[in-house]
Amino acid sequence: MIQTPYLLFLGDAPDQLAAKVAQGIKDWRPDNAVGQYRMEGCMADVGLTDMTLAEAKEAGAKTLVIGVANRGGIISPEWKKVLVMALEEGFDLASGLHNLLRDEPDLVAVAEATGRALHDVRVPDVKYPIASGERRTGKRCLAVGTDCSVGKMYTALAMDAEMKARGMKSNFAATGQTGILITGKGVPLDAVIADFMAGSIEWLTPDNDPDHWDMIEGQGSLFHVSYSGVTMALIHGGQPDALVLCHEPTREHMRGLPGYKLPTLEAVRDMALELARVANPACKVIGISVNTQHMSEEDALSYMAEVESRMGLPTVDPFRQDAGRLVDALAAI
Amino acid sequence: MIQTPYLLFLGDAPDQLAAKVAQGIKDWRPDNAVGQYRMEGCMADVGLTDMTLAEAKEAGAKTLVIGVANRGGIISPEWKKVLVMALEEGFDLASGLHNLLRDEPDLVAVAEATGRALHDVRVPDVKYPIASGERRTGKRCLAVGTDCSVGKMYTALAMDAEMKARGMKSNFAATGQTGILITGKGVPLDAVIADFMAGSIEWLTPDNDPDHWDMIEGQGSLFHVSYSGVTMALIHGGQPDALVLCHEPTREHMRGLPGYKLPTLEAVRDMALELARVANPACKVIGISVNTQHMSEEDALSYMAEVESRMGLPTVDPFRQDAGRLVDALAAI
Repeated sequence: MIQTPYLLFLGDAPDQLAAKVAQGIKDWRPDNAVGQYRMEGCMADVGLTDMTLAEAKEAGAKTLVIGVANRGGIISPEWKKVLVMALEEGFDLASGLHNLLRDEPDLVAVAEATGRALHDVRVPDVKYPIASGERRTGKRCLAVGTDCSVGKMYTALAMDAEMKARGMKSNFAATGQTGILITGKGVPLDAVIADFMAGSIEWLTPDNDPDHWDMIEGQGSLFHVSYSGVTMALIHGGQPDALVLCHEPTREHMRGLPGYKLPTLEAVRDMALELARVANPACKVIGISVNTQHMSEEDALSYMAEVESRMGLPTVDPFRQDAGRLVDALAAI
Repeated sequence: MIQTPYLLFLGDAPDQLAAKVAQGIKDWRPDNAVGQYRMEGCMADVGLTDMTLAEAKEAGAKTLVIGVANRGGIISPEWKKVLVMALEEGFDLASGLHNLLRDEPDLVAVAEATGRALHDVRVPDVKYPIASGERRTGKRCLAVGTDCSVGKMYTALAMDAEMKARGMKSNFAATGQTGILITGKGVPLDAVIADFMAGSIEWLTPDNDPDHWDMIEGQGSLFHVSYSGVTMALIHGGQPDALVLCHEPTREHMRGLPGYKLPTLEAVRDMALELARVANPACKVIGISVNTQHMSEEDALSYMAEVESRMGLPTVDPFRQDAGRLVDALAAI
């Protein structure tokens, strides 16, 4: 559990896209961030107040979150200076970088001397159980995709936000680095040991009120041969009552796999539903979330109308439109 | 890669079943073991010559393999004495116990001083890649089960033995502790990090001769909610050309999951085949292996005849009968 609120470190981001973790925190959990810290030459701006470490501390920030991708996979000397100063000023550090904070001896030494925590959210810090398969109280919704990176996290976050706005009981259950940094907690599922994958999702979404929804962030795809085991563990560990299908219609092949075509929405629906019903016989597919960012307004709307009529399910782009109709469908269960 | 041949350590096994790892090595790779080492009170005997450490060394043994389950999950002081002596005598140690050899400071110190290796086959010692999904040359067969512990390893080993006897090119590809100790190499899949599961199976079964078969040891079941992600990774990382369905007909519920009924053979066939065809469109189900150990001869034969006629696939118990008909089916692909 990472202490909030954060100061978002944008470093020397070469462009706006490099700061997408910080942007995600600002978009989805604005209360979690007091401001942003930018170094000289930073080309990103997530629209928060620029602050020094001292100003952020004064504003109550507890953790400096690295909200930017590092260049070349290393933590540069320039970054290091700021990170060390932050520890000295009393900040914890949190990062989703492949280059772990804990692998930097100087950061470890300063963190120890100052009594601060280094959070590497790529590495599990919990000993997860093996999944028991026992039914849990409360409800769960899982986003499943035709492919990786088609908008599963965005969909779950957008639905969670809409549910909270309606006064429904909802929680976004993060299963990836960005999601964990956004909410301050979660399971870095891709780094969990095989035997404990499904158990980690049971742990993440425990018994809850009968009308409480865990909106579980999906990962991978049942049809993506590199990561399908992770998706499977989400379906069986999550015991979802509801599935939302996520799709990006302009994708020409599976992400990173040039020889693999995307499955149809029908194939994902049938496969995911049959597998989900092993753990929860009442599971339903409640809607379809389409990532239409690479389509014109006209193409997007006509594509979604066609899918909606073909599949008989509410079909929306929660970014272009909103997640209201998906939440309507969930509320109707 | 564990150095062969072995001396099999049976310790103070309370009964024959406790020595099933040693029995597996003796049954499937008799050339891998020069003899057995039994302590006072040992109630197991795998039928090899009893040897002292010195005699085994003289006979060429390179590794002392712990072929017995430990009591209470700890390596006892009595065992320790033998293990330390073995290191001093120049043996490597290999173990599939949960209690790792490397977590015992005295064993680590003696191994270092003597320059010997400690092999904990529960822990991967390779940095596996992320699966690429690229087609590999050679052929692969995967055993998939209705449940855990229904005879998948036995089936793959029996088919591999039959293929070798026929002069076919075959390799048993171990994916669990016992299989790894039997063959001296493999992937401890349940201990692999989620992102690398499918990649570890690609690594285990690389390009090979067009007429070479990797007989891949299955794990878990697509319908076992605790371990289904592991099974999925085998199906997509293994790219099998052939599947053998494995089943134990007297099982009343999924292993360790009292609330979960076993799936039908038809459900496993359809689900496994659709998923396998994502990675290998030519994949076929070639036969059914039934574990009839808890059935009378008459019941077993009539059950298998019924399944064979219903499923239209050769159906055998490779222990009660042999794996010949399964290999016939494989050879016909």
